Amino acid sequence: MRVDGVSYKSIFTGEGGATVHIVDQTVLPHEFRIVRLDDVQAVARAIADMQVRGAPLIGATAAYGLALALREDPSDAALRSATRLLAATRPTAVNLRWGLERVTEAVARLPGRDRAGVAWTVATEIADADVECNRLIGVHGLTLIREVAERNAGRPVEILTHCNAGWLATVDWGTATAPIYMAHDEEIPVHVWVDETRPRNQGASLTAWELGHHGVPHTVVVDNAGGHLMQRARVDLCLVGTDRTTSRGDVANKIGTYLKALAARDNGVPFYVAAPSSSIDWALDDGGEIPIEERAEEEVRRVWGRSDVGDVRTVTVVPPSSPVANPAFDVTPARLVTGLVTERGVAEASRDGLLALFPERANRDGEGRSSQTEEEARA
Amino acid sequence: MRVDGVSYKSIFTGEGGATVHIVDQTVLPHEFRIVRLDDVQAVARAIADMQVRGAPLIGATAAYGLALALREDPSDAALRSATRLLAATRPTAVNLRWGLERVTEAVARLPGRDRAGVAWTVATEIADADVECNRLIGVHGLTLIREVAERNAGRPVEILTHCNAGWLATVDWGTATAPIYMAHDEEIPVHVWVDETRPRNQGASLTAWELGHHGVPHTVVVDNAGGHLMQRARVDLCLVGTDRTTSRGDVANKIGTYLKALAARDNGVPFYVAAPSSSIDWALDDGGEIPIEERAEEEVRRVWGRSDVGDVRTVTVVPPSSPVANPAFDVTPARLVTGLVTERGVAEASRDGLLALFPERANRDGEGRSSQTEEEARA
Repeated sequence: MRVDGVSYKSIFTGEGGATVHIVDQTVLPHEFRIVRLDDVQAVARAIADMQVRGAPLIGATAAYGLALALREDPSDAALRSATRLLAATRPTAVNLRWGLERVTEAVARLPGRDRAGVAWTVATEIADADVECNRLIGVHGLTLIREVAERNAGRPVEILTHCNAGWLATVDWGTATAPIYMAHDEEIPVHVWVDETRPRNQGASLTAWELGHHGVPHTVVVDNAGGHLMQRARVDLCLVGTDRTTSRGDVANKIGTYLKALAARDNGVPFYVAAPSSSIDWALDDGGEIPIEERAEEEVRRVWGRSDVGDVRTVTVVPPSSPVANPAFDVTPARLVTGLVTERGVAEASRDGLLALFPERANRDGEGRSSQTEEEARA
Repeated sequence: MRVDGVSYKSIFTGEGGATVHIVDQTVLPHEFRIVRLDDVQAVARAIADMQVRGAPLIGATAAYGLALALREDPSDAALRSATRLLAATRPTAVNLRWGLERVTEAVARLPGRDRAGVAWTVATEIADADVECNRLIGVHGLTLIREVAERNAGRPVEILTHCNAGWLATVDWGTATAPIYMAHDEEIPVHVWVDETRPRNQGASLTAWELGHHGVPHTVVVDNAGGHLMQRARVDLCLVGTDRTTSRGDVANKIGTYLKALAARDNGVPFYVAAPSSSIDWALDDGGEIPIEERAEEEVRRVWGRSDVGDVRTVTVVPPSSPVANPAFDVTPARLVTGLVTERGVAEASRDGLLALFPERANRDGEGRSSQTEEEARA
């Protein structure tokens, strides 16, 4: 999307496909800095330190990471070691493993000399596919916003979002933000309530920054405020992202999402999740089984921002002797999700709803079930 | 309660009743500073700037403020002007107006020369009554904790609290914390999840500090985390304070309380509100009618903490061009409240539940209803 009038993607290649560049998301909104990643170690660090974050972007970045590793050393051992290194950076995001698997499958049977080039091509395909996927999520989500706009008769469509499922979380467009950018570009009046999203403040620091630079009206609120806004009818719909979606429509997303889903249900506000198919873990049914990443205490203890003299500092906000816990995600059960906005359309948050849009998964599942039945028959 | 082994109250008089001293809560947890308030202007500033905060403490502080004003000028005009000044500092807390009214009623018919002395006595009575009230809330709430402890059979009772309804919010004991301190002092194992409570972080900066100095095990989490903790059965009960309780048991408390009440309901976790009778607004039935204070943008834009070189600084966390909204309270409807822990016992969060403990209010209300019925009969 646009930054000061210039179009950017959150990850892009340069020098004729020789280098990978990212937007360093740890210094936003105070500084807009492009960083070059030179090797797989730098890629792993960028993911672990959340210079890049957001499930779809992590998938593409990890794929480029493997390509960089294979450029240095195309051996099976190097491939395994790089995959392990990258997979360990963020345990919850399914896209990370998915990106690594796609590259590994593509290069596994190739001779060493071809591996880096093919990996690079696959990484670029993943990045390009993400842009197209999000564009389609935008098209389908736009329908939902347009419906509210028609009912609102001129009053802006009030949308609450949590964390950053914006273009910075993807390669472009964003997932939850794609419909918002499209609505805004079509001159449908929208206004976005942006949850600050402690502990890392990605709402205030990334989503607000994104929306502001694109010219979308928005207001930042603390994470505590959304329930009150919904009680007072200040929210027409919620629209958030997902880090992992189960086959029955449970959604693991940034910690706090569940609380907003509860408030939406309690106040009759539709709660939509922008869920690219890459976020769907077809092997997992119950969101309660998703491992929840426990991140560093420092994220809670310290808040990062710009000081009055203009430099960037952290301040400590928790008494040093007080323990801290920092679960990074929570699971919103499907029963609280009005719909999953996928690249193929809006699905009911259920196995049947998802299978209606992804029937090829029903076949796989059918095979699985039928062999299980045969096995049971033999038993 | 104790600070480094010394007993303190959050407001106390000195020099033989000549001066008022408070704990400056805007510099905690980084500094423990006692401030002397010399006149009503200083008192009003201390309340507005939240050097003192918490509904019960505000009531006592405002009463001392009137006493200080009457010492300077005991006229009716001065009384009115001081009352206006103090009442305007925080619009939501019912205790503020209640404290002012008690002093005004006590001095209104007195000659000027007696007013300051009587006002001072009434203020001290309010402060002492608050301590006793909270002690009783502690006694009644302790029963609830003890019941869980018996079921837990040695596993600590996990209590989630929001904001600071601790001794710093009152004159001593706290409301929500009184049962916790008593349980801890009785060697019932407790562990408190302390919500950070953005935007002012009173959970991290005050509740964690209080509990830590008293030796109560606790863990600080961001406001987003409580729902996840309840989903994973890490919370036995929630215990929060209230700034205003309606006659049917709706609760206006720090923004975000409602979200935790929703999560508690969704996970079968009891949600108790420590509600001294001074917080009950008998004239108000529907919490949706409570005016919600909209506080300064700066509270959201800036976070205050200790820098690495040890001084206290604020950092800006929201892009300067992004608008901000800052509602300070939300309303938890009575249907989500398991019980109201008052100084007279635990009440069901309903008109009947409250009237069972405060029958003298039923009489007043009965009179009101009966005259209404007579009026209707005449109509």
